[in-house]
Amino acid sequence: MLSLSQAMVASADNGARRLMAAAWMAHCGVNARIVDKRSTKVFCGQADGLQCRSLEIFDSLGFADRAWKEANHMIENPGNDGVIRRSDRIPDTIVGLSRFQQIVLHQGRIERFFLENIKKHSRDQIKVERGVLPESLQIDESKVNDDSAYPVTVKLRQLSEEEATPPQVANASKAPDGLFRSNLVQDNDEDDLIRKSQARAGASEIVHAKYVIGCDGARSWTRRALGFELDGEATDFIWGVMDIIPITDFPDIRMRCAIHSAENGSLMVIPRENKLVRLYIQLKEVTPDASGRADRSKITPEIIFGAAQKILSPYKIDYEYCDWWTAYQIGQRVGTTYDAYSRVFLAGDAVHTHSPKAGQGMNVSMQDTYNLGWKVALAAKGIAKREILNTYQSERRRVAQDLIEFDHRFSRLFSGRPAKDVMDAEGVSMEVFKDAFLKGNLFASGLSVDYGASTLVVKAGDALKQGDGSKALGSFATISEEDFKKKQALATGLPVGMRFNSFKVLNQSCARPWHLQERLKADGRFRVVLFAGNILDPSQKARGYSPGAPIDSVIEVLTVHSSKRADTELLRDFPDILHPFDPHTGWDYNKVFVDDESYHEGHGEAYKNYGIDKQRGCVIVARPDQYVAWIGELEDFDNLQNYFEGCLVLGSGATNDNGTNGVHKCANDTNGANGTALPIRR
Amino acid sequence: MLSLSQAMVASADNGARRLMAAAWMAHCGVNARIVDKRSTKVFCGQADGLQCRSLEIFDSLGFADRAWKEANHMIENPGNDGVIRRSDRIPDTIVGLSRFQQIVLHQGRIERFFLENIKKHSRDQIKVERGVLPESLQIDESKVNDDSAYPVTVKLRQLSEEEATPPQVANASKAPDGLFRSNLVQDNDEDDLIRKSQARAGASEIVHAKYVIGCDGARSWTRRALGFELDGEATDFIWGVMDIIPITDFPDIRMRCAIHSAENGSLMVIPRENKLVRLYIQLKEVTPDASGRADRSKITPEIIFGAAQKILSPYKIDYEYCDWWTAYQIGQRVGTTYDAYSRVFLAGDAVHTHSPKAGQGMNVSMQDTYNLGWKVALAAKGIAKREILNTYQSERRRVAQDLIEFDHRFSRLFSGRPAKDVMDAEGVSMEVFKDAFLKGNLFASGLSVDYGASTLVVKAGDALKQGDGSKALGSFATISEEDFKKKQALATGLPVGMRFNSFKVLNQSCARPWHLQERLKADGRFRVVLFAGNILDPSQKARGYSPGAPIDSVIEVLTVHSSKRADTELLRDFPDILHPFDPHTGWDYNKVFVDDESYHEGHGEAYKNYGIDKQRGCVIVARPDQYVAWIGELEDFDNLQNYFEGCLVLGSGATNDNGTNGVHKCANDTNGANGTALPIRR
Repeated sequence: MLSLSQAMVASADNGARRLMAAAWMAHCGVNARIVDKRSTKVFCGQADGLQCRSLEIFDSLGFADRAWKEANHMIENPGNDGVIRRSDRIPDTIVGLSRFQQIVLHQGRIERFFLENIKKHSRDQIKVERGVLPESLQIDESKVNDDSAYPVTVKLRQLSEEEATPPQVANASKAPDGLFRSNLVQDNDEDDLIRKSQARAGASEIVHAKYVIGCDGARSWTRRALGFELDGEATDFIWGVMDIIPITDFPDIRMRCAIHSAENGSLMVIPRENKLVRLYIQLKEVTPDASGRADRSKITPEIIFGAAQKILSPYKIDYEYCDWWTAYQIGQRVGTTYDAYSRVFLAGDAVHTHSPKAGQGMNVSMQDTYNLGWKVALAAKGIAKREILNTYQSERRRVAQDLIEFDHRFSRLFSGRPAKDVMDAEGVSMEVFKDAFLKGNLFASGLSVDYGASTLVVKAGDALKQGDGSKALGSFATISEEDFKKKQALATGLPVGMRFNSFKVLNQSCARPWHLQERLKADGRFRVVLFAGNILDPSQKARGYSPGAPIDSVIEVLTVHSSKRADTELLRDFPDILHPFDPHTGWDYNKVFVDDESYHEGHGEAYKNYGIDKQRGCVIVARPDQYVAWIGELEDFDNLQNYFEGCLVLGSGATNDNGTNGVHKCANDTNGANGTALPIRR
Repeated sequence: MLSLSQAMVASADNGARRLMAAAWMAHCGVNARIVDKRSTKVFCGQADGLQCRSLEIFDSLGFADRAWKEANHMIENPGNDGVIRRSDRIPDTIVGLSRFQQIVLHQGRIERFFLENIKKHSRDQIKVERGVLPESLQIDESKVNDDSAYPVTVKLRQLSEEEATPPQVANASKAPDGLFRSNLVQDNDEDDLIRKSQARAGASEIVHAKYVIGCDGARSWTRRALGFELDGEATDFIWGVMDIIPITDFPDIRMRCAIHSAENGSLMVIPRENKLVRLYIQLKEVTPDASGRADRSKITPEIIFGAAQKILSPYKIDYEYCDWWTAYQIGQRVGTTYDAYSRVFLAGDAVHTHSPKAGQGMNVSMQDTYNLGWKVALAAKGIAKREILNTYQSERRRVAQDLIEFDHRFSRLFSGRPAKDVMDAEGVSMEVFKDAFLKGNLFASGLSVDYGASTLVVKAGDALKQGDGSKALGSFATISEEDFKKKQALATGLPVGMRFNSFKVLNQSCARPWHLQERLKADGRFRVVLFAGNILDPSQKARGYSPGAPIDSVIEVLTVHSSKRADTELLRDFPDILHPFDPHTGWDYNKVFVDDESYHEGHGEAYKNYGIDKQRGCVIVARPDQYVAWIGELEDFDNLQNYFEGCLVLGSGATNDNGTNGVHKCANDTNGANGTALPIRR
């Protein structure tokens, strides 16, 4: 059996990472296969917190509302001191940082949202294939630079039901370790979301792919097939994790909090949905052996919960229902290389491992594939230059390095004994801990990520220092420190390299308020956001803020002006190109927005919050993943043109080879134009 | 074949009405059958606007977010004058009226939300049975007052596929009249949401039911079986309706607006989802015949659209895609009687018909069954006295009378010629029209409904005048004008008889902000909302605001206090009864709330907005349908007790007979107590 595929995502057990990659393929109309060694999905346990940024990403895909509705919302942290008094109360998410706040939901539901989203956007084409194992992977080096080639060959084998069932499911007990079907979860009706194999167990298949993404966990088969390593070491600390419905008089059990006991170690409380609470518990009585590894098989729920009771004393805690438990001693490691020939990529735990306490694992891993997916999709479709694929490692390996450093510092502080007094140098002072906690909150929101200069991000400075420091970068449009300072001053609230922050604006035609970020959907398109300023001012009109013919299927132009909505008319005051006419469906009423007061939801003050001059405005390019890529004045046509020439295949007629499964159109590709015209008038 | 059923809902074509009744049965755990003559559901056309109140109701069931996300939001009306200049701009929904604003979505999606919700809450027990026709209905008068009897006997017949298919589906054309599968709708995967009949066509079944609800439209079979009439007459006006994707230079096509042309009649624009716009068009060239009826078969889309083009001139309008069209000349009629022996009920179009222009049809009809459903469910379960069923007619027939009056006035104004000048007495002045439009907006929000005094609503005044004026009412706790004035003054923002308005409060235990209305879910429970005031004040503490043992499965107690959240502790400052302890799952953290500033969503100012004294507070009873039923001081135990004794079956051990399909528990019935204890300590 032989199969051609533009992209293949291999995975073992990291649902959300691989599904994020699959979601991009679905949203961009790329033919893809998603294979998974397991026969069942994750039912409970397995990661929990969702960062603000992850929710913004879910919203770009179209299902943040589902997660937001079902999740527990974490609002406040009461800091705790050594004798279990509240040392302080701080908001869990820094106020004003995002339109979302950090929430908690188990991964099974998140996977469900992904599966339904992928089904819908791929029109039933992309489904997870379970119980399928990769057996070999070859890259034809002679073809890796050929845009139309399928240089990666993967051999897949269909597993038997027995081989594919994780042991935890087979041996489910009352309080299972690891994976287990929870009776709080009601979604086993997902048959139409996965692809049932017709092949008999043991049958093989050869797949030729343009790209392969390995999201196959800390013991990644893909990483081993490529011969790549992880750098770093295991920590001394051993932690237990339990998801229980607590019966307790501890007053802050429904708040995220950290408890440092004087002698019995530390504990972290993460309130969850459905009355559940997750406890992270330091296990002082379990010690690593001579090799530095602890024997996990000797750890029982009784040992873990006994430690929790000691730490929480004099408060009492008990439980009848335990949903899931585990114990871990985790290495803090980062992969040396994230890809082979920009054809096979590693993501998530396959290239970075760390402790789950900071709630970063699933988030950072999903964000790896959110960063990579659209790049692979646009390269596979011939819309973007393959060179942009280098930015995956420079951008995401740097984030992993920062994460490990944060985790290292945070874990040490968290596992340390509280200081007895100011003279106790070995103890951890609560001031130091609280400071780390606060900084951690910003880091943990996922919003401090700042991508360095590259083909995709036009900013000043040393690209290697801003990135992971090792990946060679190609040539790209550079900008001097002085010039960049001037450009960045046009929109101080939209730092180049960071995610496009969101404020409310109104639709010009119907006055409906939208968070601007809601208009930056994950459909693979770059966006030119034209902050047109006061369009009724004659001098502003004369500046010619109208771009040339944009390629709506590749680059969408959105306008946000600052005149009064009631004084302006879509058809009278805005050039046609900003609200394109379609002979079948009329004018497009969803491209022009205004920074004005709404009837029911206040004034977004977008210009003010973005730090943009209300009179003169500016132009921003947002990447398909919502990161600010370029900034300029309304008349900076040449620079804008240079930016797109640097990363896209323009004027050459983009290839639109979608493999054997037929041509998908980009979501929202209503105009049909594709890669043939210049995006911007010179 | 013989089947027993606590409640049966018969319907022909009014999906949302019957499904609202079914939703109550599902949420309250009542065994019910839902039978529908049609074989397919509604795909497009058929009602459109959703009032604020309908969205609040959807939220109480758990799916307002889905409607809110998919719908078009109507934000602004530009009033229009005779030569098509904007006469004014007004917000479509009065600012501050509700946490929702009026939206537009086609009925097919709304039905889908209902079906999924009913499946979930009835645990797959309640499904629509399509292609089933009632053939006879008998009421055994000797048993109508016996709480445990099944006095209604209905004979059902299984239709053949051919009999059950509506003609519009069988003869779908490019621009269909009436029902038609739209290619904009992607939800034909509903097989698991309906019950497939195993019976062959023609097979009969006898059902014995405690209650039957007929939601079977203007030609209601149930109404005719009961021998009841509709009072009223047909209007002279003939209107066409089209759902199109318009190609036009008319600037306000994405706003709801009314256009009065000088000579060519009137038109109304309702922007919808997916680029669609609905036009209501006055057909001046089609006149009724001698009998007062117009020949609908002679009306074509060309005639309707030609009229629209004339009215909109000099603006141009055209279309390529028409989703649905129809024409109507509708009677404005109200049923004389809404029920037989409080055993068989009529709802929706079966008891009131009117023009669809005010966007009230689906909303008012759904609200009929939202009013009725919980009453039938609680009576069927033996929790409430059957006497409360009388309030259905007194409350809802009055609303229908008000609706007809509103529709009559609005239709005349809308169909009239604009006044040429102030001396033109025959024409309609734009001032009069705008005034009617504004008043109509309040009426159309669904929030002006004010139920009169009854067993369920304790207020002063003449119950017959406040109700429909004809339904005999039983004895109930009365209150003098003077006393009621004092009670109402305790919470001026919560008028007795009107729906419980919503402001944000914080969960005491986790600081999460909630709209208070979000905690008044449609699970069949009454709610005692204890506005406990400043609980830290010694004099307030001494007032003994703790009620006795509530029956959590019948009456839920929610507390909202006004002290600072950070100064109060759930376990320390609130009696156990306000956050009940369960030996299996610990304390209940979802009963106590505080009126305080949130981190991310401002201050709800609930006490201020409800007009409640922050120091002393008050107590409110909310009915299961969120209407304010009773108001008193914290120490008004006796009066509160009297209220519940008037409408509930207390202290007698409620029957819990769920027919043959096993016992359902009420949603959220976590405590298991059911109808045996007194709700309030004396």
